[in-house]
Amino acid sequence: MEDDPGRKMVEKTCDVLERIRRQHPLVHNITNYVVMNFTANVLLALGASPVMAHAIEEVDEMVGLANALVINIGTLSQPWIDSMAKAVRSARDWRIPVVLDPVGAGATRFRTETARRLIDEAPVAVLRGNGSEILAVAGRKAITRGVDSVHGAEDARQAAGDFARTCGIVVAVTGAEDFVTDGFRTARIANGHALMSRVTGTGCAASAITGAFCAAETDAFAAATGALVTFGIAGELAARPDPGPGSFQVGLLDALDAVDGAMIRQRSRVTLS
Amino acid sequence: MEDDPGRKMVEKTCDVLERIRRQHPLVHNITNYVVMNFTANVLLALGASPVMAHAIEEVDEMVGLANALVINIGTLSQPWIDSMAKAVRSARDWRIPVVLDPVGAGATRFRTETARRLIDEAPVAVLRGNGSEILAVAGRKAITRGVDSVHGAEDARQAAGDFARTCGIVVAVTGAEDFVTDGFRTARIANGHALMSRVTGTGCAASAITGAFCAAETDAFAAATGALVTFGIAGELAARPDPGPGSFQVGLLDALDAVDGAMIRQRSRVTLS
Amino acid sequence: MEDDPGRKMVEKTCDVLERIRRQHPLVHNITNYVVMNFTANVLLALGASPVMAHAIEEVDEMVGLANALVINIGTLSQPWIDSMAKAVRSARDWRIPVVLDPVGAGATRFRTETARRLIDEAPVAVLRGNGSEILAVAGRKAITRGVDSVHGAEDARQAAGDFARTCGIVVAVTGAEDFVTDGFRTARIANGHALMSRVTGTGCAASAITGAFCAAETDAFAAATGALVTFGIAGELAARPDPGPGSFQVGLLDALDAVDGAMIRQRSRVTLS
Repeated sequence: MEDDPGRKMVEKTCDVLERIRRQHPLVHNITNYVVMNFTANVLLALGASPVMAHAIEEVDEMVGLANALVINIGTLSQPWIDSMAKAVRSARDWRIPVVLDPVGAGATRFRTETARRLIDEAPVAVLRGNGSEILAVAGRKAITRGVDSVHGAEDARQAAGDFARTCGIVVAVTGAEDFVTDGFRTARIANGHALMSRVTGTGCAASAITGAFCAAETDAFAAATGALVTFGIAGELAARPDPGPGSFQVGLLDALDAVDGAMIRQRSRVTLS
Repeated sequence: MEDDPGRKMVEKTCDVLERIRRQHPLVHNITNYVVMNFTANVLLALGASPVMAHAIEEVDEMVGLANALVINIGTLSQPWIDSMAKAVRSARDWRIPVVLDPVGAGATRFRTETARRLIDEAPVAVLRGNGSEILAVAGRKAITRGVDSVHGAEDARQAAGDFARTCGIVVAVTGAEDFVTDGFRTARIANGHALMSRVTGTGCAASAITGAFCAAETDAFAAATGALVTFGIAGELAARPDPGPGSFQVGLLDALDAVDGAMIRQRSRVTLS
Repeated sequence: MEDDPGRKMVEKTCDVLERIRRQHPLVHNITNYVVMNFTANVLLALGASPVMAHAIEEVDEMVGLANALVINIGTLSQPWIDSMAKAVRSARDWRIPVVLDPVGAGATRFRTETARRLIDEAPVAVLRGNGSEILAVAGRKAITRGVDSVHGAEDARQAAGDFARTCGIVVAVTGAEDFVTDGFRTARIANGHALMSRVTGTGCAASAITGAFCAAETDAFAAATGALVTFGIAGELAARPDPGPGSFQVGLLDALDAVDGAMIRQRSRVTLS
């Protein structure tokens, strides 16, 4: 809350969170096997309604019921890609926002190409990944070995800005500090906790929460920023008793249920520019 | 325990639970990706033995080893439907009870039709769903917008009774109050806790527990009623410390392990008619 | 730590664990749906880096990035078997160790044959299963009804030794007491806790941890032994507060994060011969 626009963003985040809890938006997830249970529980704890459905026979109908679509390519196979592509087109037709999580883009060509194909298929509202995933989707090679290094993070932010501007997508790069951009505006979010990287699926959870925020807020830049602020604060709350990673995963769900406007106003560390 | 038949039902529930803990019946689940881990842990905590296997190549052999089969259509695709259909036929041939959980019936035609196809395939002992799922399988439209409303719940109970009588299936409609019927007898169960709707897979867990009870008790009406009483009481125990949803999920497994005859006799709230 | 070689094995275990925590080896898992989340969290808690990927299109590339491959046949289907076979061949080509967990071998022909086919496909470093699974893979029938009985366990150890010697595979038979053999050396590990059998996926977790140890230690016999000692001690730590099965699962992740050289030196109960 370092500046006036920052203060407005925080207030908007509180409003969107309240809307989620009042409206329980339906978030349709086509996501990976590893995180399905955790993702559903994350959305329920936040106040949203999760649904998972991947059959090509029903994907259009399910998207038609949903308020947002989250696509996560963590455990791909060809039939799932076909369903994902159809779901993204359905989301365009039904006019609901799409969040894309390009898990492992850059690690294999199959993932990089799938992420790009989905973006080409139909409009994506938010692309959320870590630095190396965003670099891969944007067609840049990670020059520094560790993209989590200072230089690597800066490369990823640069690529994110260019890609956002070119493609008209909000890009969220999560890491030690989160970065959100629509190519013109940027937000840097210093909330979160190191324990979040010791539990599988926290990145996927960030994408799912972004989906819930997009369901309740049409400005995808504000939605993505608010989602990451809220999730980061939940991580801080859950880390307070200094838990082991198992207890932290449980506490993260409790914290997503407990986080409220007062906590967000007190703890948010977001800088806009 | 408001009446004498109710008292007998409670005693039967205690007996069946003891049998489950003595015999560890093998419950074969063909269920959705979201809840597989939780379902397996629910069955283990209760005292049963879970197995998950969906390949058409082995489904008959696995059903032949099992004491009950639980089919849950939460994350469908065509190969899984083929295996489910084969498993239901195998269960008929091996003479083991089948519990069907028509997750999302009514939400998409694909799910409604799959649930009905499985019922047509071979005898199902218990159909367990929420009000809107049961209405959809029974071929009724939810007239009121919210089936959890008083009118909607009554519609679902009516439809459940008709469907149970016509098809010779025990139907369990779970919600704020659970309702079980074989078309002639009915049980209303007022156990449970609101937190159960804040964790994904509690409905699926109710179906899996019903499978374990059916494995140990031939009267499917008594088995379904006992399962829902037992699960509801476990939910109440887990909710006592006023946990967040993450802690509640963990506590629910602990409670399923801890629940015993004394607690069931003390806490069961079942009305038969 | 009953003997000198035992003491050396304990020191080696401490060294390997330290290496895992320093190097965060990438462990590629093609595993079953039930345990994917728990397995990933087990590896993260231990200090390793998990990745799950099963598409035949990317499996070779992913194996090329990994330091070990863990194959678990818990929820098979034909496309997954094809990917598993390809992954095992890739592991040979990329010279990384393979751990095979033949879940349910002996329960259905499909599983027994798949486990054997994978072993025939390319070298496997460690085969880890319970007594009846190992007997099935080794082509022996469980003579006694309960392989967990004293006689059954002895049969399985005998079969493990013969199979290990013939095939040049380290075989780990887990149960009340764990047994590891390369056909010449044997280790008996008396660590662990009965609660480990009340949570789904602890066997699979043992295999995944063995994968992490194999990634950091070329002697597969020492790696498997060290993995089971470490996991057993984590189980003992997690069982200390006398938790229910839900809390135990969470505590097991906390314990895998907390276990260190001092605890291993103090608590390990391994006998070599």
